[in-house]
Amino acid sequence: MEHLQTLDGYFKENREEHLGQLKEFLRIPSISSLSEHKGDMKTAAEWLMNSFNSVGLENVSIDETDGHQVVYGDWLHAEGKPTILVYGHYDVQPVDPLNLWTSAPFEPEVRDNKLFARGASDDKGQVFMHVKAVEALMKESGSLPVNVKFIIEGEEEIGSPHLEKYIKENKDKLAADIIVISDTGMQGPGQPAVCYGLRGLTGVQIDVQGSQSDLHSGLYGGGVQNPIHALAEVLASFRDQEGTIAVDGFYDKVRPLSDEEREAYKALGFDEEALKEEVGVAELFGEKGFTYLEQTWARPTLEVNGIFGGFSGEGIKTVLPAEAGAKITCRLVPDQDPDEIVEKLKAHIEKHKPAGVTVKVSEFDKGKPFITPFDHPAIQAAGRSYEKIYNVPTAYTRGGGSIPIVAAFDEILGLPVVLMGFGLSSENFHAPNEHFHLENFDQGLRVIGDYYYEIAGFSKDDLKK
Amino acid sequence: MEHLQTLDGYFKENREEHLGQLKEFLRIPSISSLSEHKGDMKTAAEWLMNSFNSVGLENVSIDETDGHQVVYGDWLHAEGKPTILVYGHYDVQPVDPLNLWTSAPFEPEVRDNKLFARGASDDKGQVFMHVKAVEALMKESGSLPVNVKFIIEGEEEIGSPHLEKYIKENKDKLAADIIVISDTGMQGPGQPAVCYGLRGLTGVQIDVQGSQSDLHSGLYGGGVQNPIHALAEVLASFRDQEGTIAVDGFYDKVRPLSDEEREAYKALGFDEEALKEEVGVAELFGEKGFTYLEQTWARPTLEVNGIFGGFSGEGIKTVLPAEAGAKITCRLVPDQDPDEIVEKLKAHIEKHKPAGVTVKVSEFDKGKPFITPFDHPAIQAAGRSYEKIYNVPTAYTRGGGSIPIVAAFDEILGLPVVLMGFGLSSENFHAPNEHFHLENFDQGLRVIGDYYYEIAGFSKDDLKK
Repeated sequence: MEHLQTLDGYFKENREEHLGQLKEFLRIPSISSLSEHKGDMKTAAEWLMNSFNSVGLENVSIDETDGHQVVYGDWLHAEGKPTILVYGHYDVQPVDPLNLWTSAPFEPEVRDNKLFARGASDDKGQVFMHVKAVEALMKESGSLPVNVKFIIEGEEEIGSPHLEKYIKENKDKLAADIIVISDTGMQGPGQPAVCYGLRGLTGVQIDVQGSQSDLHSGLYGGGVQNPIHALAEVLASFRDQEGTIAVDGFYDKVRPLSDEEREAYKALGFDEEALKEEVGVAELFGEKGFTYLEQTWARPTLEVNGIFGGFSGEGIKTVLPAEAGAKITCRLVPDQDPDEIVEKLKAHIEKHKPAGVTVKVSEFDKGKPFITPFDHPAIQAAGRSYEKIYNVPTAYTRGGGSIPIVAAFDEILGLPVVLMGFGLSSENFHAPNEHFHLENFDQGLRVIGDYYYEIAGFSKDDLKK
Repeated sequence: MEHLQTLDGYFKENREEHLGQLKEFLRIPSISSLSEHKGDMKTAAEWLMNSFNSVGLENVSIDETDGHQVVYGDWLHAEGKPTILVYGHYDVQPVDPLNLWTSAPFEPEVRDNKLFARGASDDKGQVFMHVKAVEALMKESGSLPVNVKFIIEGEEEIGSPHLEKYIKENKDKLAADIIVISDTGMQGPGQPAVCYGLRGLTGVQIDVQGSQSDLHSGLYGGGVQNPIHALAEVLASFRDQEGTIAVDGFYDKVRPLSDEEREAYKALGFDEEALKEEVGVAELFGEKGFTYLEQTWARPTLEVNGIFGGFSGEGIKTVLPAEAGAKITCRLVPDQDPDEIVEKLKAHIEKHKPAGVTVKVSEFDKGKPFITPFDHPAIQAAGRSYEKIYNVPTAYTRGGGSIPIVAAFDEILGLPVVLMGFGLSSENFHAPNEHFHLENFDQGLRVIGDYYYEIAGFSKDDLKK
């Protein structure tokens, strides 16, 4: 365990410098979904490229795709040893509503040992930790115990529309033995988790058009369909009042939870009262017959992410609006297929479309759900690395979120994927006041460093899926 | 009919100057509902005061209320003759969505003999016509055939919250024999109408709160209520799929249409095909069992005027939003009571409120519905004035819109109200590209001038309600 002490010393000594560098990275507003941030995306990619070069990664490149760029780097001098492919993303979510942020989203600020900024935990902070782990090992011994390849993309938050093609075109360059991703959460403060499954994602935007321009609700009201009302009827038809999704065939391919899984989740002792307090609701609401963990890990959802139409300013405007729209996404679980689900959504919308309006449905990008056996040696090794640093048993969990590209890695490269995250569910990913608990930054750096040694103990054959 | 020729000559001679003045008035962005336009409201009131003074009105004043100001002026030297109280408003509706305007809303522009600007027809243009009618009569003969009082307010578009108090406190100052309002539409191009009834207005804003801040739809989705979904369920519950409002007791006090009224409306030969083309819809949609005119003149409505919640920008944001809201207004018909209807709405919302969210309901300002006998001499006289200028029979109609203060005038002053409007339903009141057909500006000026002579032919007793 000598390397643990070495890592510990290095990270303590350089903590302020590392945090300063991370803040630099977080100041770049790399919002992939908004076209006005195209320049910032390039700046973030360049920042990362420079960072790769400075820690000793080689063959560093910014690779073009049909969308935002991919940043690549490797170190391949551990002859005969396994190769770890580290995947992450440098893009972030939009930041509105801006007025709910205590400090500006792109002005990182440490308060109470938490680093506040968009991207602090999802995912710039965690990508940065892998880079610094490489730096620490290189600085101390001049080499790494395993081979590593980094592939950090800029389109995760918009569903990785171009990465699949990139992986296909770069199969040889990306060849490895396992894939490691740090973009998931821990089970709770001080409670590490290795995630063995993720939900997939699919979605549609519904645009409802009534009259060709807004109408006076007095002159026309009562005789012309109101697109907001029509849209509300469609949205309300998507589920019953108990939260079960009412789209024909939606649950057809859902893999039922095994008794073992349900028992394992129960054993985690999830605190629903604490959750209610954390998110500020008096009661939870979800599909009947399932616990909260089951609902969010192993059951699919249909959520309205946004709605718009008519007048939403101060006061009153008695308008009969011309248009209304809603953005809808579904979280999918094995073995639902995103394309099939979109077809079912479209059929449902067509069936429930009210009279007097036209309805346009457009598709968002899709990601398949993913699951991997939790007894794989690379998974178990991750659990051991956590336990060495956190001194508690690691939980083996599934995640409610989606990293759409995980399923693509699985399909194209055929490699086991290890999801070892350092975020906490209270850290407001995708919401105002995103932050990262710095104790997990500090401990996570050591976990990652140790994990490289753990994997060095296996042969390539051991790690075969 | 000598005065008609005189008026004709005067308005022709001064047309360009008059249009120039009206454009000045329209350039002032007097949006009463938006607090940032408070200064513009004062500018518009002052512009009107100067205009009153310049045409020879007396006792001109800007009167304070607890909201926006009222502009008053009179001319009371027609001894023994009736007094006409002219009511109108100098405030206008908001202008969004701005990108749908062909020319800027506060940069008036004449295209194809139509004047485009916010307020061109609703109601600055029509207020201006009354001022210019006074000017013409004063310029030509040094006096008016009747007494007139002008009361032009700045809060009509937000429901006239302070005018009722103003009328009560100024009963003597406002004493008159009839009230004339030009804020309604004609029956169609070249088809004048006198309106004998108006719908009332009431409304609520529904604010739905789920979690205390936006949540990641992957991590929490499926286990926490979505406020947009909850709101959609409430909105969908407001009516059945045929357009009938499903709020308990909503129709209880609705005065049924008489056979005579239904016949009279039928006789107007309303062209539903032309309407569909005008507003750009493939089919009309309204309460079953009623014609379009009946639906919009004599039946109540419940319209969602605006909805908001979650992410509405470009692309996708997989958020489980914390809040959603909707603005709802009802058009009311005799003898519905706005306060009673709000209570029924609140009871309905309480009953249909989904689990897992809190719902706040706030009230908008209210206006009662109004109706007046169409055989009153002041109504019939208005019909004659139109017929002299337009050379076609006048239609006696009801209006789907609301001038909430009309019911208050009726109740407090006990006077017959004559609604003689010059707008056309195609003129985009409350919507982008509001405009005013200048042929109705030209002919309307003469109708108003003639109407003052018509009323001069009656004794005060003739006009008693």
